[in-house]
Amino acid sequence: MSELVKVVLKDDEIPRQWYNIQADLKKPVPPPVDKNGKPIGPDALAPVFPMNLIEQEVSTRRWIDIPEEILGILKLWRPSPLYRARRLEQALKTPAIILYKNEGVSPPGSHKPNTAVAQAYYNREFGIKRLTTETGAGQWGSALAFGCKLLGLECKVYMVRISFDQKPFRKIMMRTWGAECVASPSRETNAGRAILEKDPDTPGSLGIAISEAIEAAVTGKNTRYALGSVLNHVLMHQTIIGLEAKKQMEMLGLYPDVVIGCAGGGSNFAGLSFPFVCDKMAGRNVRVIAVEPAACPTLTRAPYVYDSGDVAMMTPLLAMYSLGHTFVPPPIHAGGLRYHGMAPLVSHVLREGLIEAQALHQMECYGAAMKFAHTEGFIPAPETSHAIAMAIREAEKAREEGKKRVILFNWSGHGLMDLTGYQAYLDGKLSDFALPEEMLTRSLASMEGLPRPPAA
Amino acid sequence: MSELVKVVLKDDEIPRQWYNIQADLKKPVPPPVDKNGKPIGPDALAPVFPMNLIEQEVSTRRWIDIPEEILGILKLWRPSPLYRARRLEQALKTPAIILYKNEGVSPPGSHKPNTAVAQAYYNREFGIKRLTTETGAGQWGSALAFGCKLLGLECKVYMVRISFDQKPFRKIMMRTWGAECVASPSRETNAGRAILEKDPDTPGSLGIAISEAIEAAVTGKNTRYALGSVLNHVLMHQTIIGLEAKKQMEMLGLYPDVVIGCAGGGSNFAGLSFPFVCDKMAGRNVRVIAVEPAACPTLTRAPYVYDSGDVAMMTPLLAMYSLGHTFVPPPIHAGGLRYHGMAPLVSHVLREGLIEAQALHQMECYGAAMKFAHTEGFIPAPETSHAIAMAIREAEKAREEGKKRVILFNWSGHGLMDLTGYQAYLDGKLSDFALPEEMLTRSLASMEGLPRPPAA
Repeated sequence: MSELVKVVLKDDEIPRQWYNIQADLKKPVPPPVDKNGKPIGPDALAPVFPMNLIEQEVSTRRWIDIPEEILGILKLWRPSPLYRARRLEQALKTPAIILYKNEGVSPPGSHKPNTAVAQAYYNREFGIKRLTTETGAGQWGSALAFGCKLLGLECKVYMVRISFDQKPFRKIMMRTWGAECVASPSRETNAGRAILEKDPDTPGSLGIAISEAIEAAVTGKNTRYALGSVLNHVLMHQTIIGLEAKKQMEMLGLYPDVVIGCAGGGSNFAGLSFPFVCDKMAGRNVRVIAVEPAACPTLTRAPYVYDSGDVAMMTPLLAMYSLGHTFVPPPIHAGGLRYHGMAPLVSHVLREGLIEAQALHQMECYGAAMKFAHTEGFIPAPETSHAIAMAIREAEKAREEGKKRVILFNWSGHGLMDLTGYQAYLDGKLSDFALPEEMLTRSLASMEGLPRPPAA
Repeated sequence: MSELVKVVLKDDEIPRQWYNIQADLKKPVPPPVDKNGKPIGPDALAPVFPMNLIEQEVSTRRWIDIPEEILGILKLWRPSPLYRARRLEQALKTPAIILYKNEGVSPPGSHKPNTAVAQAYYNREFGIKRLTTETGAGQWGSALAFGCKLLGLECKVYMVRISFDQKPFRKIMMRTWGAECVASPSRETNAGRAILEKDPDTPGSLGIAISEAIEAAVTGKNTRYALGSVLNHVLMHQTIIGLEAKKQMEMLGLYPDVVIGCAGGGSNFAGLSFPFVCDKMAGRNVRVIAVEPAACPTLTRAPYVYDSGDVAMMTPLLAMYSLGHTFVPPPIHAGGLRYHGMAPLVSHVLREGLIEAQALHQMECYGAAMKFAHTEGFIPAPETSHAIAMAIREAEKAREEGKKRVILFNWSGHGLMDLTGYQAYLDGKLSDFALPEEMLTRSLASMEGLPRPPAA
């Protein structure tokens, strides 16, 4: 493979099933509960999600067929190429083989449409005409706008006001794909109006935007809500990434020693890694590392609890590592990793010892992103830079140990819509953030009185 | 091919030679001349370009080997996928097969790096350490920054001041790839200082920026100038697009009835079409259409003359269709198509009747871009939208005539860095521009007294 730069698969080599890790877990993930600790049944979720997705959420079937219509749309950019980062390897003088899966080739530029298309499809099949969601920096909102347009649904996005004002380009993408995008808090919902009455100049927050999107879904005609990460079915839709990667690595005669993904809500990490965690549960030797920002260290610092997915506690309580639903992470550029909780399935496999977690500061990550752009050419998203930085650490360790090691990471998206972070870095205006310890203490305290998940 | 969305080629299927159309022309292209009509010899170009590229410029060898190191870098995104725009076909209810070559998959997002990498390579082989260039909206500047970084050259970009101020994102891309980018006119060159003394608040122009970049090249140590279009060797580097497309179409058992590209300087158009023009010269039946903006109708309205490539007349006189070097096109969003002249090779094949030309207004093109984004998903660059609009016209004609026709066009780049044009369109603030006839008259008059190319 002396000249190989990437492995491409043909359209008809696309995986035709998603992998559902729930089938293989020794212990099941604790179910969502209400504030009294009572498990939430499917019916309670029905006003928010369509029943076919709720069924996927709780399914324990190992393989779930991907409908042909979804495959037809995914093939616009999938199978995504698996790259060997040969020029990065050379720059690092490492004996390691570094491979990455390029999810930046999708129309919105990240892994997010893998689930946006699927969610739009199942909602349409269920008779839904319109989806609502929230978005921070706009990566998820633009992916759902794209998915809805291609499947003929309307889409309404509540975008956190400060991002709405400061980041106009993602908003234009959403509009180009036909979505309506409003600043949150808006005057369109009770939740939004209540906040605006108290604080007309609020910059908004993801928690507020979630509250508005859910309210708009449950009160709207033929309307449901779509979430871009955290939930079981969302993570499952992303496993197509890892299934493709396995096929591509088999073509190379390689198997990874280390699998790496950045983790905010957990979906791109799970998408690449769960098919390998599956092998690990069957006895195969592979390390799997989730990388999070040191400014929002959910997997490395937070307790395993039942907590709400949003600040307004609109969602059921999920069993997960959580910094507390009132935690507001420092304003790092990797907006997609600024989440207080972590997907229950990712939390569960960490607790079971199947994966590891590491927290990195943003200056190291931007340095890694620059090294990547200067060797491999592509400019990564700030979220993705966390996975790159960890891959570089592992490659340097391999060099120090003189070991040939195969490192696979998820290049979850490009950074062309996030160039202001690079500007700040190049201008020397960027720095690391200390974890706001006092806020963390208060935030952890906010979970007191909530039910506890069963002991490990 | 019922489910086929795209045809991908493996790394080792990349073409290993460029196609040089000069080998097959019945009459040679008239050579560049000075103001007295005297042909410019290679030595006169030596202060501006390295001799190995000057040799390519005048070569009549049909096939020129692509060096391994260039191939290694091109493979970061090449071979680019050939798509069948099945969802667009369905929306148009056309019996036509619409195929497009996606050049937006490169790190800077367009076809430009195909030549940027090659030019950086040949300059480095010749001992050059630093390249200078000009850029308007920034697509070429960012491609050259990318090419220079990956080949270890320094890069200096003179960016038209109004774009420098209004379009910060391409500038950040260039800086991320290590290039120095200054607003033009700058205080760093005689040309720049002279302009600033007369008009300190000038918005700048491409003509001024070219003057500065050439001055910086000829006065700098180990420095040369790089041009992103127009010249023979630049067009040749782009033929890898058409050579790949032919291979991919052969895999489908298809040959195009119509080949379409947008044309500003002519490089993406020539890149896709020249391998098919080659077949046409050998007797094959294929229509080839260059699409230009009605606001800058070089191929459809201009005379075939000897004219300068820049407003300051720093370049030799080239035999081409030209609106006159003083022509300033209306501010359409397709900045890459706002050029007064046209590549001599493209001009020549039009004159020989081997290709056709069509001029379209921007509202039709934006409408086509929206239709494309809503069906195929990818958001095209405003330049690319001209090729899409013509493909749609041809597909609609096929429907009216009830004919199955194979239409191939070049999707020259994505529009993620050009979203403000979409915003203006969505806000209803965009309109077509009338051709500034008076200015055209003056501009055509500015070429009086220049030597004339030989009659056809």
